[in-house]
Amino acid sequence: MILSALLTSVGINLGICFLFFTLYSILRKQPINARLYAPRLVAERKLKDTGFNLERLLPSAGWVKRAWELSEDDLLESSGLDGVVFMRIITFSLKVFSIAALIGMAILLPVNFTGSQLKIDISDLPNKSLDAFSISNVNNGSNRLWIHFCAIYTFTAAVCCLLYYEYKYLSLKRIDYFYASQPQPRQFTVLVRSIPTVSGQRLDESVEHFFREYHPSTYISHTIVRRTNKLQQLTNDAEKLYKSVAQMKSQEYTRGFLGIFGNKAQQLSKLEKRLEVVEDNMRMEHKQSTLGGKEVPAAFVYFKSRFGAAIALHMQQGINPTKWITEEAPEPDDVYWPFFSTSYLGRWICKLGMLVGTFLLTVLFFLPVLVVQSLTHLEQLERYFPFLKNILRLTVVSQVITGYLPSLILQLFLSFIPPIMKTMSSIQGYISTSEIQKSACSKMIRFTTWNVFFANVLSGSALYGFDLILEPKKVPLLLAQGVPAQATFFISYVVTSGWTSLSSELFQLMALVFSYIKRIFSGKESDDLVVPSIPYEKEIPKILSLGLLGITYFFLAPLILPFILVYFCMGYLIFRNQLLNVYAPKFEMSGKYWPIVHNSTIFSLVLMHIIAMGIFVLKELPLASTLSAPLPVLTLLFNEYCRQRFLPIFTTFATECLVAKDKKEQDNPRMAEFLDKLVDAYKDPALKPKVNDNNNDDNRLTSPLLRSGEIRV
Amino acid sequence: MILSALLTSVGINLGICFLFFTLYSILRKQPINARLYAPRLVAERKLKDTGFNLERLLPSAGWVKRAWELSEDDLLESSGLDGVVFMRIITFSLKVFSIAALIGMAILLPVNFTGSQLKIDISDLPNKSLDAFSISNVNNGSNRLWIHFCAIYTFTAAVCCLLYYEYKYLSLKRIDYFYASQPQPRQFTVLVRSIPTVSGQRLDESVEHFFREYHPSTYISHTIVRRTNKLQQLTNDAEKLYKSVAQMKSQEYTRGFLGIFGNKAQQLSKLEKRLEVVEDNMRMEHKQSTLGGKEVPAAFVYFKSRFGAAIALHMQQGINPTKWITEEAPEPDDVYWPFFSTSYLGRWICKLGMLVGTFLLTVLFFLPVLVVQSLTHLEQLERYFPFLKNILRLTVVSQVITGYLPSLILQLFLSFIPPIMKTMSSIQGYISTSEIQKSACSKMIRFTTWNVFFANVLSGSALYGFDLILEPKKVPLLLAQGVPAQATFFISYVVTSGWTSLSSELFQLMALVFSYIKRIFSGKESDDLVVPSIPYEKEIPKILSLGLLGITYFFLAPLILPFILVYFCMGYLIFRNQLLNVYAPKFEMSGKYWPIVHNSTIFSLVLMHIIAMGIFVLKELPLASTLSAPLPVLTLLFNEYCRQRFLPIFTTFATECLVAKDKKEQDNPRMAEFLDKLVDAYKDPALKPKVNDNNNDDNRLTSPLLRSGEIRV
Repeated sequence: MILSALLTSVGINLGICFLFFTLYSILRKQPINARLYAPRLVAERKLKDTGFNLERLLPSAGWVKRAWELSEDDLLESSGLDGVVFMRIITFSLKVFSIAALIGMAILLPVNFTGSQLKIDISDLPNKSLDAFSISNVNNGSNRLWIHFCAIYTFTAAVCCLLYYEYKYLSLKRIDYFYASQPQPRQFTVLVRSIPTVSGQRLDESVEHFFREYHPSTYISHTIVRRTNKLQQLTNDAEKLYKSVAQMKSQEYTRGFLGIFGNKAQQLSKLEKRLEVVEDNMRMEHKQSTLGGKEVPAAFVYFKSRFGAAIALHMQQGINPTKWITEEAPEPDDVYWPFFSTSYLGRWICKLGMLVGTFLLTVLFFLPVLVVQSLTHLEQLERYFPFLKNILRLTVVSQVITGYLPSLILQLFLSFIPPIMKTMSSIQGYISTSEIQKSACSKMIRFTTWNVFFANVLSGSALYGFDLILEPKKVPLLLAQGVPAQATFFISYVVTSGWTSLSSELFQLMALVFSYIKRIFSGKESDDLVVPSIPYEKEIPKILSLGLLGITYFFLAPLILPFILVYFCMGYLIFRNQLLNVYAPKFEMSGKYWPIVHNSTIFSLVLMHIIAMGIFVLKELPLASTLSAPLPVLTLLFNEYCRQRFLPIFTTFATECLVAKDKKEQDNPRMAEFLDKLVDAYKDPALKPKVNDNNNDDNRLTSPLLRSGEIRV
Repeated sequence: MILSALLTSVGINLGICFLFFTLYSILRKQPINARLYAPRLVAERKLKDTGFNLERLLPSAGWVKRAWELSEDDLLESSGLDGVVFMRIITFSLKVFSIAALIGMAILLPVNFTGSQLKIDISDLPNKSLDAFSISNVNNGSNRLWIHFCAIYTFTAAVCCLLYYEYKYLSLKRIDYFYASQPQPRQFTVLVRSIPTVSGQRLDESVEHFFREYHPSTYISHTIVRRTNKLQQLTNDAEKLYKSVAQMKSQEYTRGFLGIFGNKAQQLSKLEKRLEVVEDNMRMEHKQSTLGGKEVPAAFVYFKSRFGAAIALHMQQGINPTKWITEEAPEPDDVYWPFFSTSYLGRWICKLGMLVGTFLLTVLFFLPVLVVQSLTHLEQLERYFPFLKNILRLTVVSQVITGYLPSLILQLFLSFIPPIMKTMSSIQGYISTSEIQKSACSKMIRFTTWNVFFANVLSGSALYGFDLILEPKKVPLLLAQGVPAQATFFISYVVTSGWTSLSSELFQLMALVFSYIKRIFSGKESDDLVVPSIPYEKEIPKILSLGLLGITYFFLAPLILPFILVYFCMGYLIFRNQLLNVYAPKFEMSGKYWPIVHNSTIFSLVLMHIIAMGIFVLKELPLASTLSAPLPVLTLLFNEYCRQRFLPIFTTFATECLVAKDKKEQDNPRMAEFLDKLVDAYKDPALKPKVNDNNNDDNRLTSPLLRSGEIRV
């Protein structure tokens, strides 16, 4: 990719960004779009209608100001610790790349540009690649490479310092947040799985007996999990049927005469009969489920104190370590019910299967990446599609194809992956939606690292990556050859994947189009207002993949750094705005995403070191390569230290915390009430009587049978 | 090495074994050797003197009968669970190699021998290597290799079954043993390290405050660890001085006149003055130690129940995970006091340093192995030492040198390693002698695996091993080439390292010689009777290294199997005899050695699979190689399952166990007494007043000052 193609890509993306920003600044002020651009405020009834005025039609940057002024305490209050951690990931990246850009642009870029290795004619720059600004242009064996060497050491030290302070800050925040939290059911609950079946004893009795015997002073009660997939399905069917019936009836009613359209009436009675059958089935299924016929060997066990629950959680309970397995209970709404029924061995096999599946998906995705990469080589395209030759010869077209299209297509392919990863994680046996999301996030990070970074870098030799595992000696040299060559492609990737996806995050093009279409065809808005939560499994891998690019290219091609810096500046404002207006926290993970970010950054650093060692050999300065060897070792030792010093704080709470919190609330009169309610916290939603929570809107209610709670046993 | 050289080696070793057995059978019956051959019985005063009779001078096999008849329950009672586990390691190996020998000798050996790949002339066998019996002799691409293929699958399945049942049996035994055990201080104690120093608060107060606050219902008391290295040294000095003074005085006394030898009297008064100085210093040091001047931020904390101690052990205590670190307390006598003073970071650095040290030692030991291997090539020796030419040409000499010497020298070198490994483990920061021994055992296993197996196999190319890590693809082929070639060397190794070391274990040649020399020169036996415990760090690695050889050579050269089988048969009898008469259990590890053996066996299996995959490629049967690929995967999955199913039982005890045991002893009146004594269990021996436990023997007592307890504060 040459400079002009890159500029085309940057131009297109800049244009799109500018368009989206302007449109957003106007459209967000139209009340008709409130549910799209500020669902959170709508749900919290915080949106005031100011009436129509001319200002509404002009783009304004008021939202930028509000986003800028948001303080961390406000953010903590409105979006929870996870929101704060998410924003701190961005500010952390901002700090890292400010340092990187400073070193890179002020020191490394001039050094690179004044080299003469590539003998680039500056007057012909637009038709050349950007190699003049990269380390490739420094003369081989030149002592100027020691500047790069020092830059790498300095940058690594700076990033490690930032990582350390961030980890420390967030671990303190996490503990403070715990101390300040209201009592939550999950703090007092433990999920017990693989309860052994004793002949002649019901599961219910087994659990009661076990915990009365071994945790006599802290055990309160428990809820056995039941297999309700079928009931859930029947409920859904009934709800759908009831909706149809209700709709039909209201239609008949508006037409005035019941029975005029005989056909319709027949249909209605048919539907009503089917509804009755389904409701009968539901009643039977419900009875079976609650009477123990469909018990799953899992239970939520409630304790009197947080410390009591933690003891049950952290100690091995049964003599057989594959029985009485205790897990952290998720929040009641967060429980992912469908996957409870499998046995220990079943879960293990599912887990293994999904690991293999993720691996295969990651590897096979290599193929579309290869296709994308072939686009950057126009000659191949001309050979395969000769009829396109004339069009391809146009400068603009060729520049669009080589500059913009590859990253766009990669982007499109990538957007299909998060839902697949989420499904895989859910099969893997996690019992809460938030854990599924976290696991999908980790999977996505590995996926993007491999497919965006390595696949593009190593695409020169098809499926070479697999051989690499078998010949690790060649890795540094291969990377050193492949990585600098892809600098321009990755700049274009940053612009497309970073800038444009950020601005479309703000503008929500697709959602906007869908809502307009819906409004035109159905004549009204959809009934349910869904306040989304941050799609961590999409956003964090994207941020981290740009971080990986920034860190690895920091000393190779510092020209990428300003683009990344702009991305994070935009991200800072846009995500703050979105957290204010759009996303509401659904489940609390209490900052558990930070360790993922930490590990990922360490990985990027070590990768940079390995590339550096390869580059210095290629550049005929082997001493620098040898002297770089301690860097990855030191970085990994630093990581190990952090892992011991901070990671435990992010996985559990210490006795000190738990007992202190328990003692503080001992005399709180509301605690007794809370503990009374606790035993009903983890009821399967399918077994709960449905309560209509929106009485104004009769269309939304479910079967009257369910509403009245008739089928409670 | 050719067949005749091997036979020489086998002959020499057989001769030595026979000699040792006969001598042992006579000498063990002489009362003068009782302290050597039955120290345990002497210590337990179970040895009856039957008076002199002629039978005592004839070799008899009574000890074999007694060893054979020993039941497992008796063994459990006399040698603890560790003794049982040790014997079960041998019986497990016996079972494995019975199966292997059956398949190998009955099926594989005939198949190999009837092949014609190597075109070996059977009449000239003595001067040929043993390759006629190995897989090398099977024709390339022959379908007979499928017999080997099936044998590998069958053998792997059999070993995995045995492993599973053994793990299951031992985990049940471990729990039974726990239930049957008397209350032990360590069950109620937790070692807390890295206690944070709060200004204005003594360590003592900090610990008291912390555990009163967070474990109010179970905490009893604690003992702060003090830095007593200096005190210990002073005590030793004082003891030595006192002994000299006492000896001198008694000598003077026997000579009748005090002061006749003026020189001696002067010496005596000098010594007495020095003793006084040392005692003064001791008094000061003792005061300082007990008054808190030399406190180490570590404490033994005592709890009312086993469950209470386990809670403190398994839960993270402090908010900062590097403070208030809890560890399992060893038995009081088992505590390794010298290494308590280092900080968390210091321990971490020591650990890293020792890991690097072990790695270097393991790698550098390669050099002596190379020298040993060069002995098997006589021509080289002749070139370096031309004057030996005539001697080397003698058949017997050359056969001894190529057949017997290499394994003997390797054996000698190897015997220096266990103490070094033990020292390294002690620096690594373990706080109990038993853990140091266990860690040294693991280190030794890695060491022997690398230096005995890989170094000999890959010795063709110097330090090639290091390259292997960087090119894992070549490993199977390299092993497939190298391993079969060393079959005869390893048979000789089994005979030397296995048979002879076993019989010298029984006969204790060196100890016997030393005791005779001592008796001749000092005229009397040494005073202290030391009952040794099994040197696990020597014996288990040896057993496992032979197991590794047996498993990997099982299908390559089945001729090795009978030799290994004989080793384990001998080992069965000899170790049972030693456990009865010689070794007494010192510390209880409750069977924690079994997981090490399990992992090691799995490693051997996987290594066999990798070699098999290489061999099948070399033998031009690639389909068999591909079809072998699932084997290591399945074996590792099996291992993972065992790790989840059984390993936790070997690391801790479950709530179910602990609470049940606590409840059983709740009403035992002796428990109150036990808990009273508990708080004094973990006193540093240097701070305890010395009590002379052998009043009959005045020579052994220490300074009267220490004896009288005068320096107690």
